[in-house]
Amino acid sequence: MESFGILVRIINSLTIYFNLEKIVAINPLWKRFPIVYALFMNILHIDSCALGDNSVSRQVTSATVAALTEANAQATVLYRDLAASPLSHASGPLLQVISQRWDADIPMNAELRAEALQSASLAQEFQDADVVVLGAPLHNFSVPSTLKAWMDRLLELQTTSSKPRDDLHLLLVTSGCGVMGLASVDELMNNHENQLKAAFQFLGVSRVNVVRGLADVPQALRLRSAA
Amino acid sequence: MESFGILVRIINSLTIYFNLEKIVAINPLWKRFPIVYALFMNILHIDSCALGDNSVSRQVTSATVAALTEANAQATVLYRDLAASPLSHASGPLLQVISQRWDADIPMNAELRAEALQSASLAQEFQDADVVVLGAPLHNFSVPSTLKAWMDRLLELQTTSSKPRDDLHLLLVTSGCGVMGLASVDELMNNHENQLKAAFQFLGVSRVNVVRGLADVPQALRLRSAA
Repeated sequence: MESFGILVRIINSLTIYFNLEKIVAINPLWKRFPIVYALFMNILHIDSCALGDNSVSRQVTSATVAALTEANAQATVLYRDLAASPLSHASGPLLQVISQRWDADIPMNAELRAEALQSASLAQEFQDADVVVLGAPLHNFSVPSTLKAWMDRLLELQTTSSKPRDDLHLLLVTSGCGVMGLASVDELMNNHENQLKAAFQFLGVSRVNVVRGLADVPQALRLRSAA
Repeated sequence: MESFGILVRIINSLTIYFNLEKIVAINPLWKRFPIVYALFMNILHIDSCALGDNSVSRQVTSATVAALTEANAQATVLYRDLAASPLSHASGPLLQVISQRWDADIPMNAELRAEALQSASLAQEFQDADVVVLGAPLHNFSVPSTLKAWMDRLLELQTTSSKPRDDLHLLLVTSGCGVMGLASVDELMNNHENQLKAAFQFLGVSRVNVVRGLADVPQALRLRSAA
């Protein structure tokens, strides 16, 4: 392991020397090389269940991210807790700005401009991610409102000319956020997962693994074989 | 029509004289009599699409409410625009308070108390309604986040011992909120409608008419025959 650490430090030095980040940014080909991919893996970890420690989905997302970072010591993790720091409901004007249907003759106010910048930043995070571990529980019969507010921002930005995100792997953690005790929960869960898959397919993401519980994590982590 | 107006005024006077509201409140049997039902019909009209005048669902809900009030001149309409005046995302503490899982030893802050009172008031509006015309469009692949925030409040309040709402008629307007242009829109729409039906069934509402467009309004308005 020590020699591996030295190797990592050498690669890091070379990276800085050659300003590799810029090369990486313009040439995603480097992701084809597993060793570099593993070293630079960007993980976007998102939770949205409002029930805190009672949430199964939070336990599953954190176990998934822990397994990913254990396997890739140099991976970076960006964490967003949409329940603790909720985004506003996307207003009509914001949707217009994001989807570039805003009439440029109408001046924007400061609040709307800040919201638009934040949306662009969220979209960039999603763009930069190699793996997204998304806590998307079925809560009160559908996606949590906080997660929907996040998805609204990505979906409105999407145009039909947007590129497929073949480089991105989405781990969709749909395990519960509290108990429902309903007979038709299987059908509801399928509906829920199909909605989310359709939304991310619209965003160009086709490599999706659904994780309903801790038992599904090992299978989902075989990212390469599942691709 | 003039004699009908006089009849209405006589009934209104009698109502005040006998303080009929109180009798009505404790005895929903009066709803069995169509003439009184029509006179006192409480309509709860809810819109949630963020796209304002571009929204098909808003056009359909307002046409539906217009037809209902035309047929029942004394009907009262309560209007809520969840996009224009959004509710906050239901936080963990609020969900605990609403569903009576809040630890009474922990003092509530003023903001949380205000949110809890507002939730109770929204639930009462739903309880008092005879007809709910709900604009619940399929927007960005699922229910708008603003509508979900409203539903969270009703659903958390619900307990398994809650009574069925056989007196309530729900007109579920699922027509679009903007265009999606997707191949699988039919399947998504079915998923969306099944989610909402399951949620309202959980709230005890079984009399649901789905309205996908203006063409469905006349059929949906035959409330009695559909029951």
